[in-house]
Amino acid sequence: MLDSVSATSSIDALMLDMGRRARDAARPLAIASTEAKNAALHAMADALLAKEAEILAANAKDLDNARENGLAASLIDRLTLNPARIAAMVDGIRQIAALPDPVGSVMDAWERPNGLRIERVRTPLGVIGVIYESRPNVTADAGALCLKAGNAVILRGGSDSIDSSGAIHDCLIEGLKSAGLPADAIQRVPVTDRAAVGALLTGLEGTVDVIVPRGGKSLVGRVQSEARVPVFAHLEGICHVYVDGSADLEMAKKIVLNAKMRRTGICGAAETLLIDSAVIGTHLMPILEALTEAGCEVRASATVLKVFPGFKPATDEDWRTEYLDAIISVAVVDGVSGAIDHIARYSSHHTEAIIAEDPKAVERFFNEIDSAILVHNASTQFADGGEFGMGAEIGIATGKMHARGPVGVEQLTSFKYRVHGNGQVRP
Amino acid sequence: MLDSVSATSSIDALMLDMGRRARDAARPLAIASTEAKNAALHAMADALLAKEAEILAANAKDLDNARENGLAASLIDRLTLNPARIAAMVDGIRQIAALPDPVGSVMDAWERPNGLRIERVRTPLGVIGVIYESRPNVTADAGALCLKAGNAVILRGGSDSIDSSGAIHDCLIEGLKSAGLPADAIQRVPVTDRAAVGALLTGLEGTVDVIVPRGGKSLVGRVQSEARVPVFAHLEGICHVYVDGSADLEMAKKIVLNAKMRRTGICGAAETLLIDSAVIGTHLMPILEALTEAGCEVRASATVLKVFPGFKPATDEDWRTEYLDAIISVAVVDGVSGAIDHIARYSSHHTEAIIAEDPKAVERFFNEIDSAILVHNASTQFADGGEFGMGAEIGIATGKMHARGPVGVEQLTSFKYRVHGNGQVRP
Repeated sequence: MLDSVSATSSIDALMLDMGRRARDAARPLAIASTEAKNAALHAMADALLAKEAEILAANAKDLDNARENGLAASLIDRLTLNPARIAAMVDGIRQIAALPDPVGSVMDAWERPNGLRIERVRTPLGVIGVIYESRPNVTADAGALCLKAGNAVILRGGSDSIDSSGAIHDCLIEGLKSAGLPADAIQRVPVTDRAAVGALLTGLEGTVDVIVPRGGKSLVGRVQSEARVPVFAHLEGICHVYVDGSADLEMAKKIVLNAKMRRTGICGAAETLLIDSAVIGTHLMPILEALTEAGCEVRASATVLKVFPGFKPATDEDWRTEYLDAIISVAVVDGVSGAIDHIARYSSHHTEAIIAEDPKAVERFFNEIDSAILVHNASTQFADGGEFGMGAEIGIATGKMHARGPVGVEQLTSFKYRVHGNGQVRP
Repeated sequence: MLDSVSATSSIDALMLDMGRRARDAARPLAIASTEAKNAALHAMADALLAKEAEILAANAKDLDNARENGLAASLIDRLTLNPARIAAMVDGIRQIAALPDPVGSVMDAWERPNGLRIERVRTPLGVIGVIYESRPNVTADAGALCLKAGNAVILRGGSDSIDSSGAIHDCLIEGLKSAGLPADAIQRVPVTDRAAVGALLTGLEGTVDVIVPRGGKSLVGRVQSEARVPVFAHLEGICHVYVDGSADLEMAKKIVLNAKMRRTGICGAAETLLIDSAVIGTHLMPILEALTEAGCEVRASATVLKVFPGFKPATDEDWRTEYLDAIISVAVVDGVSGAIDHIARYSSHHTEAIIAEDPKAVERFFNEIDSAILVHNASTQFADGGEFGMGAEIGIATGKMHARGPVGVEQLTSFKYRVHGNGQVRP
């Protein structure tokens, strides 16, 4: 008992020290030039290539431990690095270097009748805590994104990836130092103790401005319920595709298939298909056949089963489930109103699509549904910062505050007002 | 004991019911037309004028109780209504009606190489909780602002203003009903029990999206430390005016005097004067004389006292104090670097001004200081939504998330992405 108390308090002290060092690093970082930040990013990429052997050796150690601990095959896959994956990390960092620097960009400017000129200008957020699972590449992605936006970051990766992340982190530090930026700009929690996560979620006495969790529902859920600072995240992506009575059947088939089956494990994958009762006779079966042929399990509502028996029946739980697998729930709804009602009840406010030719249906769908991303006649799998043209993203947020939808470098910034006068006083 | 437990649990139940009703009202409100919202606002204004006698009678009752309870004269003044103050409320509501509707406005739009057209569109935030002191006019201001941005609101005013707020709230409800909007769009906590505030701060099971406290430091401090939902607020405004070596003396005198003395009780009032050591001999005394003549007490640093003895000495506490009174602390700093260091250490990140003719000093001041509002050659007292051209404001925020600086109707919105396709699937 005593041991665990003192271990916790030493973890708390370690984390608090990291928070203070991050806060100290944030000030010079906020005014670092674009050139210095980009030089650091390219130096990081170079270091990752130069130290490939060391990184793979560290990864081999993690993989040995993981196999010994009986880690699931899918988790082992995520943990595994190879030259191609290291090259992808390097490429990702160079892409972040190529993005425009958000810091200092003028978002808005106007002049007042009294001659005051007001500008709203992007600034870094400050210090970001990133908590992620055992995917070593997130160390590089998240570190590089936070740096580009002028933020200091504290990285806490999964314990199974501790050595791999450490080797990658060494390269990031090398890049920072070579560009004359503070090494504390990108810190990594060097211990696997879970108390470190708890400490980070307190905000470390006001030194951490925002937490970004990257991982599955249990990680995000814990972060959302325990964090005492703002969180950019989505708990899950229960994404809907609604096929309106006015939909083109071929387009609907193609989009539903892509939205569900292109990759089933991502948050923008469709989980529920809603079909307008007006076209149940013409549109539903061709779509369900295409899904079934592609290997997708269909879970159908009672109304669907009445017309097309033979599918597995959906329970109420199905409408609330993010399968992240080749399974889709299917319900019949009464036009766009019915779709809006179903989505209001079950959606996780991530991404919803409507397939329709009728602009009135699209307008209602776009106006009345309160999700981060609404899509017309395209796949829900476009819900991604890269596909939006934002460059890399650190995740997708479904909250309504500050960042919503893909979180890229711009969303990792705040702003301030600059007021230019020539002697004005307030009457 | 039992009584208080059951009172608390009945307050909790009452508040939770208010939260659910607000959430239900938020959905139709989010898609209410600009015309309906403006019609409701004008009907509210009309009702306030028509029911002036009832409002003044309710206010007289509050004032009687307040005097009986020995309320301070300044608080009695804030609580007092009269025909002019009712007319000002009416005017404020009509000004909010005249503002552009932020909901549905396109913030940004771009097209992707694959033909997807992406728009970022303003949406209401949802449900806002406003907690304020016994200033009955806030009932009208806050209710009208939240409505304009399409948000449902739960108002919790100070207990001394319960009857006045109730009479004003009746007029708001009348306006909502006459425009066919849900009466639950603007709810008022009908009890004075402080447990209602505690319940509101929990977010009422996810029904409240953001809390806005309006009042003094103790109210804001409690809200910031207890709230489990985001808060738009500033704890205090420790605003600095820095007079650079390149400053024009006449301009500096005029601006410092206005920044400190125009109104001493507002958050944008200057509390500390920093003077460049380069001009201590020429600029300091004329400025201090102007302040002293205007009735301002000067608390001077040791360096100031060495050159100009006779002022009251400033302690370390003075640099951290928001006087909200005719008092100013004065320190000598080593150029703009010294000013930036002092402000980094003591500022509350609200508003800071630089008086300078040297553009390099201004650039460093603007780049390196992390406060919501930075002002060059103008008074800090322009830190106000109206002065910024935003129309009315619900307050000023010093946090870095979502809203920063003046919080007007636009800042009371979130956004969503609308993606327009013509059959795109993701490769």
